[in-house]
Amino acid sequence: MLEPFRSFSMDIKLAQNEYGESRVRLFRVTHRGGLHEVKDLTVAARFEGSFGAAYMAGDNRAILPPDTIKNTVYVLARQYPAEAIEDFAFHIVDHFLTYNPQVSRLNLDVTERPWSRIPIGEKAHASAFVGNAGERRAARISATREKITLESGIEDLHLLKTAGASFENFLRDPYTTLESRAQTVFSTGLCAHWSYEFPEPEMPFSTMWHGIRKTLLETFAAHESKSPQHMLYALGHAVLDNFEAIVEIRLSISEGYCVLVDLKPFGMENENEVFAPAAEPRAIVSATLRRNGNLV
Amino acid sequence: MLEPFRSFSMDIKLAQNEYGESRVRLFRVTHRGGLHEVKDLTVAARFEGSFGAAYMAGDNRAILPPDTIKNTVYVLARQYPAEAIEDFAFHIVDHFLTYNPQVSRLNLDVTERPWSRIPIGEKAHASAFVGNAGERRAARISATREKITLESGIEDLHLLKTAGASFENFLRDPYTTLESRAQTVFSTGLCAHWSYEFPEPEMPFSTMWHGIRKTLLETFAAHESKSPQHMLYALGHAVLDNFEAIVEIRLSISEGYCVLVDLKPFGMENENEVFAPAAEPRAIVSATLRRNGNLV
Amino acid sequence: MLEPFRSFSMDIKLAQNEYGESRVRLFRVTHRGGLHEVKDLTVAARFEGSFGAAYMAGDNRAILPPDTIKNTVYVLARQYPAEAIEDFAFHIVDHFLTYNPQVSRLNLDVTERPWSRIPIGEKAHASAFVGNAGERRAARISATREKITLESGIEDLHLLKTAGASFENFLRDPYTTLESRAQTVFSTGLCAHWSYEFPEPEMPFSTMWHGIRKTLLETFAAHESKSPQHMLYALGHAVLDNFEAIVEIRLSISEGYCVLVDLKPFGMENENEVFAPAAEPRAIVSATLRRNGNLV
Amino acid sequence: MLEPFRSFSMDIKLAQNEYGESRVRLFRVTHRGGLHEVKDLTVAARFEGSFGAAYMAGDNRAILPPDTIKNTVYVLARQYPAEAIEDFAFHIVDHFLTYNPQVSRLNLDVTERPWSRIPIGEKAHASAFVGNAGERRAARISATREKITLESGIEDLHLLKTAGASFENFLRDPYTTLESRAQTVFSTGLCAHWSYEFPEPEMPFSTMWHGIRKTLLETFAAHESKSPQHMLYALGHAVLDNFEAIVEIRLSISEGYCVLVDLKPFGMENENEVFAPAAEPRAIVSATLRRNGNLV
Repeated sequence: MLEPFRSFSMDIKLAQNEYGESRVRLFRVTHRGGLHEVKDLTVAARFEGSFGAAYMAGDNRAILPPDTIKNTVYVLARQYPAEAIEDFAFHIVDHFLTYNPQVSRLNLDVTERPWSRIPIGEKAHASAFVGNAGERRAARISATREKITLESGIEDLHLLKTAGASFENFLRDPYTTLESRAQTVFSTGLCAHWSYEFPEPEMPFSTMWHGIRKTLLETFAAHESKSPQHMLYALGHAVLDNFEAIVEIRLSISEGYCVLVDLKPFGMENENEVFAPAAEPRAIVSATLRRNGNLV
Repeated sequence: MLEPFRSFSMDIKLAQNEYGESRVRLFRVTHRGGLHEVKDLTVAARFEGSFGAAYMAGDNRAILPPDTIKNTVYVLARQYPAEAIEDFAFHIVDHFLTYNPQVSRLNLDVTERPWSRIPIGEKAHASAFVGNAGERRAARISATREKITLESGIEDLHLLKTAGASFENFLRDPYTTLESRAQTVFSTGLCAHWSYEFPEPEMPFSTMWHGIRKTLLETFAAHESKSPQHMLYALGHAVLDNFEAIVEIRLSISEGYCVLVDLKPFGMENENEVFAPAAEPRAIVSATLRRNGNLV
Repeated sequence: MLEPFRSFSMDIKLAQNEYGESRVRLFRVTHRGGLHEVKDLTVAARFEGSFGAAYMAGDNRAILPPDTIKNTVYVLARQYPAEAIEDFAFHIVDHFLTYNPQVSRLNLDVTERPWSRIPIGEKAHASAFVGNAGERRAARISATREKITLESGIEDLHLLKTAGASFENFLRDPYTTLESRAQTVFSTGLCAHWSYEFPEPEMPFSTMWHGIRKTLLETFAAHESKSPQHMLYALGHAVLDNFEAIVEIRLSISEGYCVLVDLKPFGMENENEVFAPAAEPRAIVSATLRRNGNLV
Repeated sequence: MLEPFRSFSMDIKLAQNEYGESRVRLFRVTHRGGLHEVKDLTVAARFEGSFGAAYMAGDNRAILPPDTIKNTVYVLARQYPAEAIEDFAFHIVDHFLTYNPQVSRLNLDVTERPWSRIPIGEKAHASAFVGNAGERRAARISATREKITLESGIEDLHLLKTAGASFENFLRDPYTTLESRAQTVFSTGLCAHWSYEFPEPEMPFSTMWHGIRKTLLETFAAHESKSPQHMLYALGHAVLDNFEAIVEIRLSISEGYCVLVDLKPFGMENENEVFAPAAEPRAIVSATLRRNGNLV
C-alpha cells in the first residue's frame, strides 16, 4: 500500500482552485395583489481566492461553506425580487465580494426555466402556469473587484427548417461518401450567449433577451443556408447588427442528422418526405462573432 | 460451472412473450406547395403470438425481424401521410395484422413531439419551426383481430399554481411532521390518457386532443384544490363531462415539493415568496375515472 | 370558459386510485466496530384503499401524507437494519398495513445501488467504497392483508458477447432487408425479476440473488444463441432449473444494434471487427417462464 | 420583419470557430484466435482552421463533412487496432493533420466505456463480457502541427467513505447555519485528468491509467479528510508523487450531501446511521496541481 502523505515533496504547487455550490434551486413568487409572478431559477456560484491552507493543511478558516452560499441565495431572493436574472446575479455578486475578502473572483450562473400563464379565453390567468420544458434563459457573471464580465444567453433552442437549407460543393477526400444535398432538413439545438460592452444593473436585459430571441428565430427562418457554418454566421451577424449594446456573441449548434430513408428497395420514391432522425453522431459547429475595435 | 442446457426439465412453460422495436424515430414532411407540415414521431411496436419455437428451439421461421418493423413504419409513413397519430397507428395495426397470421396481438405506441411554426410578424412561416421540448402527444393501440382498444394521451404536461391550492386536515400518525398548508405552491407533471367507447379511424382525434388539453389547463387553473387527489378527480371529471366520446380517463401526477424556505434564522419573514423545489422525493397520485354502465 | 365544477354528473365513478411517494432516498450505515456496512436504497410506496372522499370532496381525513411515508421509511431503517432489501420491504409493509386500516393494498419498490469496498492490497477497506453505477438490485412487494406477492430482481445488467450469437432463417416479407448473420455482436441490457412460491421474511434472499446473477452471466456466456428470444428462454430456464424456490421469472432484453460498418467503399474488409453501435431503434424482447402446476 | 442579410456591416469579425462530429460511436473487436478483445469508444473531433469563407459566404470548399470524420474514425479503427485510447487518438490526429492543410488545430476526445470478461469459475470467458456502466476512461488531445498536448483521465468515479472525513472550524457569516461535523459521510463523483510532460505514442498509457486509478482509490480510503479541498489536494499530490511522467493533474469533485436524518421528533437517536442523500444542491470543488519548474 501507498503511504502518500508522509513525504509531500515541496516541488508541487496548487496552480488553480475553485469551489462552490452547483445547483441551488429557487422558486420565487412575487405577489402584486392577486397577480402572481413566478421565477424558476437554478443558481451555481463558485469562489476563487486564497484557499491554499484548506487544500494543503486542512485549515478551513477561510472556507465559507457551500451550504451558506445556498442560504444566501434564498435571503437575497427575498430581499431583491429582481425581474431579470441578470439583475439578481448582480446582487449575488455584490454581496459575496463585499463581505468575503478571501474571495478574489466569483463565477456565477443563473438559469431560468420559463413558465407561461394559462390562457382562459382571451385572458391570462393570474396565478396558474404551464411549463415550457425546453429552452432556458441564462446569465453568467465572472467578477473580480476590478472587473465584471456578463454574458446573457439562450440555451437549448430547438429549431428546424424543411426548406432553404442545402449542403453542397464541400471538400471530398477518399473517405467521403456523403452526397451533395440541394435540399435538406436542418434540425438543430442552438445555444447563443452574448456579452455587453458595459454591463450594468438595470439595463433592459429582459427586453433585449426577447428581442434577440425573435431575431434568432426570424433569421433562422429567412436565411438560405448553405451550411451550418453559414447559418451560424448569419444568426450572429443579425444579432450584432440589431443590438448595439452587444459586443460579442458565441453560438453553437448541435445538428442531429435527419437521414432521408431509402425506399427504393420497396419500389417507392421518397422526395424529401420520410426521414429517420439519427440520435448519434451529431455534427457540432461553434463560432464567436465580435465587433471590431473591441479588445475583450 | 453450470451446465444448464443439457437437461431442460419438461415442467417449465413459456407463460408470456412479446417482441418488437422500441424506438423507431420518424420525421415526415408533407408538402402542400410551399407550405410544409411536419410530424416528429417515435413508434414502438410489439408482437404477441405463436413464437414458442423461437424461444424453445431457436427456430426463427415465425420471427419477422424488428428491423422489418422499422422499414414498414417508414413505408407506411410514405403511403399514408395521416395528420392524426391515431390514424397512422390504425394503418400500422391494419398492415401487421393483415399480413402476419403468426401475430395474435399488436401493441403499438406512437408519440409525437410538437413543433410550432416560427412567427414572422403576424404570420406563421411556411417551413421553419421551433420545438416545444416538453409535453408529448401519445396514442396507444392494443389490437387483436377481434378487438381494438385505443388510448390517446398527453404526457409530461408541466403545470403549477401559486394560489387556489391547500393541503389541510389530513391523517396524522406518530411519524407525521408535515404542517397544514392553507396555501401552497402546487407544481406537477401531469399525464392523462383517455379511451374511446367506439374507436374508429377518421374520428376527429386532433380536435379532441386540443379540446381536452384546453379543458385540463382551464380546470387546473380554476379548481380550488384541497389535495392532489381532489385536483386529479376534477381534471378527469371535466374531461368526461365535456367529451361524450370519452369513456374512461387515466390520470397521474408527479408532484415535486416546493418547500417554503425558513428565513427566520436570518430575521426575515417569508410569506409564500421564496421556495426551494426539492428534487426528491416526489409524491405521486394516480386515478382512473370511468363512465358508469361501461364494462371496459 | 368552462364551469366544470357546478354540475358533476352522477354517472361518473372513480374506478381506480393510488397514491404515495416515488423516490425516498435512503443511505444507511451499520457499524460493527470499525467495520462499516452501507446500503444505498431508493424506496417507492403507493397506497390503494378507501380514498374516495379525498378525490370527490377534498376530504383529507383518510390521507396519510406522502411526507409521513418518507419519515416512516427513515424510522424503520433505524429500527430494522436489515441486510436484504426484501426483509426491509417486509418491515415497511408490516408497519403500514398494521397501522392504516384505510389502506387495502400497499405496492412497494425497494431498489439498491451496489457499492464495493475499496481494495487495499489483498484486503478490503473497512469504511471506504467505490460505486458500481450500472446494475441495480430490486425488490417489489404487492400486499393486502390476505396475500403478499414478492418479486426480486436485477435491473440494467449490461451484457455482450462477440461469439456464439447468430440470427438466421427468419421470416421475410417484402419490407425485409436485413441479412442473415451467422455471427453477430449481441449487446443487451437485461432485466430479470423472479417470484417465490412462498415468500417469507428471513429467506436467504441475498445468497439467492448472487446465485441467480451468477447463473444469468454464465448462461449468457455459454449459450449458443440463435436469437434474443432463444437467449431469453435459456436464461429463464437456467434460473428455474437451479433455484427450486423460484416459481416464475420475467425477463426482458433491450438490444442495441451493433451494426457492422461497411468499409468496402474504402477498399477494406471488415470481418466482424469494426461496428457502429446504433443509439436507436432498439429491439426489445420479453418473456415470462413459469413452473407448471403453479397457479400464480 | 428583419432584413438582416442585406447590409452586413464590415466591422464584425469571426473571432473563433470550430466544427466537427460529437459522438462517433465505435465498437471494435480484436480476434486473437478465439480470444476476443473489445473496445467500446465514443469519439469527438473538432477542427479549427481557415473556414471563414464557409461562415461568411457559404463557400464549402474547405469543409470536410462531419460525416467524413465519422467514416475516417472507422477506417482508422480497422487499420490501427490500438490497445490504449491514447494511441488511437494519436493515429486520428496524425491522419487529419497530414491530409488537411486547411485545419490548423484538431481537438479530439476519445472516451472508453469499460467491459469486463464474465468469470466462469476461476477463468475469464474468451468472448462474453459484463458492462461497468459507471466510470469512463478518457483521452483528450489538442494538436497543431507544432505542438501537441495530451490529457488522460478518469471520469465519474463514484467514491464514498463513512469514516475519516470531517468538516469543522470553517468560516461563519450571518447566513451560516451548517453545524460542524467531526464525522461525516463523504460521497462524491470524482473526475481526474492528468497531462504528460512529453507525451508520445507507445508510452505505457494503460499501465499508468490503472496505476493512477489505484492510487486515487487507496489515497481516498486512507486520507483523514478535513474538507473536500483537503481530500482533492491529497489525491492530486499522491498521483504527482508516484508518477514522474505526469506533470499536472486537474481534479474535480461533485459532492452530494448525505444529510443525517433528525429522528428526535420520533424519540430516537441517530448516530451516523440513517442518512437522506440530497439530489440537489451539490457542492463542487476543483483544483489543479502542477510540478514546479514546469511552464505548461
